[in-house]
Amino acid sequence: MDKYILKIDCQDQKGLVYKTSKVLFENNLNITKNSEFVDKDNGKFFIRVEFSGECELSNIKSELQNTLPQDATIELMQHRKKNIIIMATKEAHALGDILIRHDSNELNANILAVISNHNILQPLVERFDIPYHFVPSDGLSRRDHEQMVEAQLNKYEIDFIVLAKYMRILTADFVQPHEGKIINIHHSFLPAFIGANPYKQAHERGVKIIGATAHFVNNNLDEGPIISQDVITVDHNYTWQNMQKAGRNVESTVLARSLDLAFDDRIFIYSNKTVIF
Amino acid sequence: MDKYILKIDCQDQKGLVYKTSKVLFENNLNITKNSEFVDKDNGKFFIRVEFSGECELSNIKSELQNTLPQDATIELMQHRKKNIIIMATKEAHALGDILIRHDSNELNANILAVISNHNILQPLVERFDIPYHFVPSDGLSRRDHEQMVEAQLNKYEIDFIVLAKYMRILTADFVQPHEGKIINIHHSFLPAFIGANPYKQAHERGVKIIGATAHFVNNNLDEGPIISQDVITVDHNYTWQNMQKAGRNVESTVLARSLDLAFDDRIFIYSNKTVIF
Amino acid sequence: MDKYILKIDCQDQKGLVYKTSKVLFENNLNITKNSEFVDKDNGKFFIRVEFSGECELSNIKSELQNTLPQDATIELMQHRKKNIIIMATKEAHALGDILIRHDSNELNANILAVISNHNILQPLVERFDIPYHFVPSDGLSRRDHEQMVEAQLNKYEIDFIVLAKYMRILTADFVQPHEGKIINIHHSFLPAFIGANPYKQAHERGVKIIGATAHFVNNNLDEGPIISQDVITVDHNYTWQNMQKAGRNVESTVLARSLDLAFDDRIFIYSNKTVIF
Amino acid sequence: MDKYILKIDCQDQKGLVYKTSKVLFENNLNITKNSEFVDKDNGKFFIRVEFSGECELSNIKSELQNTLPQDATIELMQHRKKNIIIMATKEAHALGDILIRHDSNELNANILAVISNHNILQPLVERFDIPYHFVPSDGLSRRDHEQMVEAQLNKYEIDFIVLAKYMRILTADFVQPHEGKIINIHHSFLPAFIGANPYKQAHERGVKIIGATAHFVNNNLDEGPIISQDVITVDHNYTWQNMQKAGRNVESTVLARSLDLAFDDRIFIYSNKTVIF
Repeated sequence: MDKYILKIDCQDQKGLVYKTSKVLFENNLNITKNSEFVDKDNGKFFIRVEFSGECELSNIKSELQNTLPQDATIELMQHRKKNIIIMATKEAHALGDILIRHDSNELNANILAVISNHNILQPLVERFDIPYHFVPSDGLSRRDHEQMVEAQLNKYEIDFIVLAKYMRILTADFVQPHEGKIINIHHSFLPAFIGANPYKQAHERGVKIIGATAHFVNNNLDEGPIISQDVITVDHNYTWQNMQKAGRNVESTVLARSLDLAFDDRIFIYSNKTVIF
Repeated sequence: MDKYILKIDCQDQKGLVYKTSKVLFENNLNITKNSEFVDKDNGKFFIRVEFSGECELSNIKSELQNTLPQDATIELMQHRKKNIIIMATKEAHALGDILIRHDSNELNANILAVISNHNILQPLVERFDIPYHFVPSDGLSRRDHEQMVEAQLNKYEIDFIVLAKYMRILTADFVQPHEGKIINIHHSFLPAFIGANPYKQAHERGVKIIGATAHFVNNNLDEGPIISQDVITVDHNYTWQNMQKAGRNVESTVLARSLDLAFDDRIFIYSNKTVIF
Repeated sequence: MDKYILKIDCQDQKGLVYKTSKVLFENNLNITKNSEFVDKDNGKFFIRVEFSGECELSNIKSELQNTLPQDATIELMQHRKKNIIIMATKEAHALGDILIRHDSNELNANILAVISNHNILQPLVERFDIPYHFVPSDGLSRRDHEQMVEAQLNKYEIDFIVLAKYMRILTADFVQPHEGKIINIHHSFLPAFIGANPYKQAHERGVKIIGATAHFVNNNLDEGPIISQDVITVDHNYTWQNMQKAGRNVESTVLARSLDLAFDDRIFIYSNKTVIF
Repeated sequence: MDKYILKIDCQDQKGLVYKTSKVLFENNLNITKNSEFVDKDNGKFFIRVEFSGECELSNIKSELQNTLPQDATIELMQHRKKNIIIMATKEAHALGDILIRHDSNELNANILAVISNHNILQPLVERFDIPYHFVPSDGLSRRDHEQMVEAQLNKYEIDFIVLAKYMRILTADFVQPHEGKIINIHHSFLPAFIGANPYKQAHERGVKIIGATAHFVNNNLDEGPIISQDVITVDHNYTWQNMQKAGRNVESTVLARSLDLAFDDRIFIYSNKTVIF
């Protein structure tokens, strides 16, 4: 039997679980997992339901729309592999980890293409027979370059864009059409060590942990809603290059975990943060 | 407004969320948190609901009993501090950690008393003005000693018994009346290093992690449903005494975390394992 | 046999390990642990040696001074319990954890007294029969209050001052005489969430980890050499109060670990960071 | 300047650090890192020295042999990339992770070839232009099959053999010539869940952590000296297949970390355990 996912969020009020489950029950559907959360600070209600059974999604959705409050955002979809584009620059670790997971069928996604502003990663990507679009930025304004990237993106039907160490700042014009669909990974020092070489700064500061944060991109590149964070322990034996390598490892791990959550439709975004079931 | 917790488990069937939420909705109650899980291997349904509002618990419970399947186990209670007895032997770390959390109001529980088969920990416990019942076991059969412990236990209304390094095996006769209410902590080597000094064995084996497991006690002392587990890293610099100290730290941490889960009524027990919301 | 600890740091040059070990060998001493590190960025050499045997420390030290470069800092001491003062304000968790470790002989230190600018923690400390000096700060200038604290400190021979959530900024005048001997614990958001309630800010930001940092205090309260850092995972279910509780747990753990390192003379401080063997 | 690594182990006695550092000092070599450990239980001494300078390794080694006790094992080598063979069966995760690290130059090793008893992983390996030797075992005795593997191994000069989920038991005849040079990764349940599907057993038991252990292989396949161990947290939401995926992730991470340690000559093996500097 097919597996479906229903995500609803709206202002909290009494009866929302009841009304939602009533529609599914009356359509003879079987809830296999149900998670609800109310953010009391904002009076915001979130529910995610996994269910199975035979159903016409559009009918279910309109029944839900009829019974739930008007402000409710309702997403209803069949569980399926997501179609993704990866954007990268020069570093191979995050991209490589995704490629290998994709190749061994560990990723709930199809990689449609990789787009990069450099051609360094092309040989790696082509090992996996995945299209590589080299879109150089030399001599172009930020927006002009982005429009060339958009020309490539527009060839595809995309569920998510994964920034696997894409080292350029994206404009609001680029981000807006994909809001909530662009996932980025960066080191976790922000705002501590801003600038060219954060690991060198962290080494000078004598930090004992190195972290990574995966987040959705909004207008503020490294400040969007956080999906997952983790750290690994370092000590004085680490040169800043060793710290950077440790950072690459934790970035790959955190990004992989975050992609699993996103591709399984487990994440809600609101107020610049996430609810993850 | 008061906070209530509802826990239901039964064989899975369609409509359980609907029927449960219907009762709460019709009684004008407000669900603030709702977690559901279906174990597909066993077709078992679990739901835990936090709600607030004005209600007569016995009425709600009987309405739920009328609408839910006959095999449903329904627990409905006001959120409140639990009343607990701690049993310990000679080691201070797990007991001390609980005492200090209790003293600074971090524990959702009242410690009614500490029972021990030794008097070593008496000065520590009395620092906190908590009754200490020294019940020696010398020269007594296991059951005779347990009956003397039970005589002390019977003085109190108890929600949970916490075995904070209580180093005696409990008989089925002792455990049965408190099934699902006795929480134990032990090192995580089992079944690897059975016997007198597991840390010495672990040291000889050259392990690189030391772990702890908190679990409910059933007839098989160290094999009951697991609540929480964690580890810490060790290396060749650790003597077995250092490993033991590391073990004490992780035991205290894991036990504290598990007590928080238990005292907030977040744990279901079934098939010798736990569902924790 | 007694256990001794030798710590040396100086500019790196050839032969330092040789010269150091020669002195110990010729005095018939037995090295049981030897750790060396060269910071290549600064050309700085660090060695820590544990040894046992019969020896006159002053003789060994002068032999080392004769053979090692003039810039060498040489510390040589018998391994012994450190004498410490704890300073705290209102929060019990870090203080309580130290008190309980002290009471069960897990801490390589004697707590001589607790000093606080409030009297809230007095009952807790007195449970353990440890002197509590309440030094109120109301109506006093920062320096005037510090001088009253110093009057208490001066009653004791102190190896370390532990700031177990002491919530006042210390002046350079206070810190300087104890440089490298004051250990502080704070949350790990800095510089991210500056101000009154960092957990509330962290909650609003939707962080997924909560951290703690233990460090030596220098003139810049929260920016001294880091000893240890750790984090724990949180999620959207955590209110900011729950995050704060999680923070308290990780603070206690990180502080305890850092005190073990400091009290065993395992830490070198240089360039605002630490080398820890 | 070249970087050299010296590893010595022998029965402990006074003067070993002195004698070792004397040779290096008199040859005008510069120690950049020096780690020593004495296992007091066995009276065993270990030292690892990193040094740089101009030197004739054979001269240094013979000087060390002349000054150190006769039982001393002395390894002296230039720091260089190791030559490795990977053996795998059907699972791609551990192998894929090594391939991608190798490809992006994160691994201090050259992968000479992959040997497998199945041809399933051939397409993955050939993406990286690495020789794949398919050595089927069907209808062959264990030793007959191993001899066919040995025929492939003998084509190469090998520093290490990495068992990246090689699912066959190796005989003592196979292991002995490579003792201390074969690294294996397995789940960390042993001896808990022996048999066909450990994750299914772990799921039934309701474990809350999933672990992995990397170790050297000796005659007892999964019981050799442990290099590294780690765990990740799971909960009731994990099916046994999800637990297996979590296990794959932690296996890849632990194996990668262990290979870094081995390929940098940081590991001593003795008494079925490891000292790692």
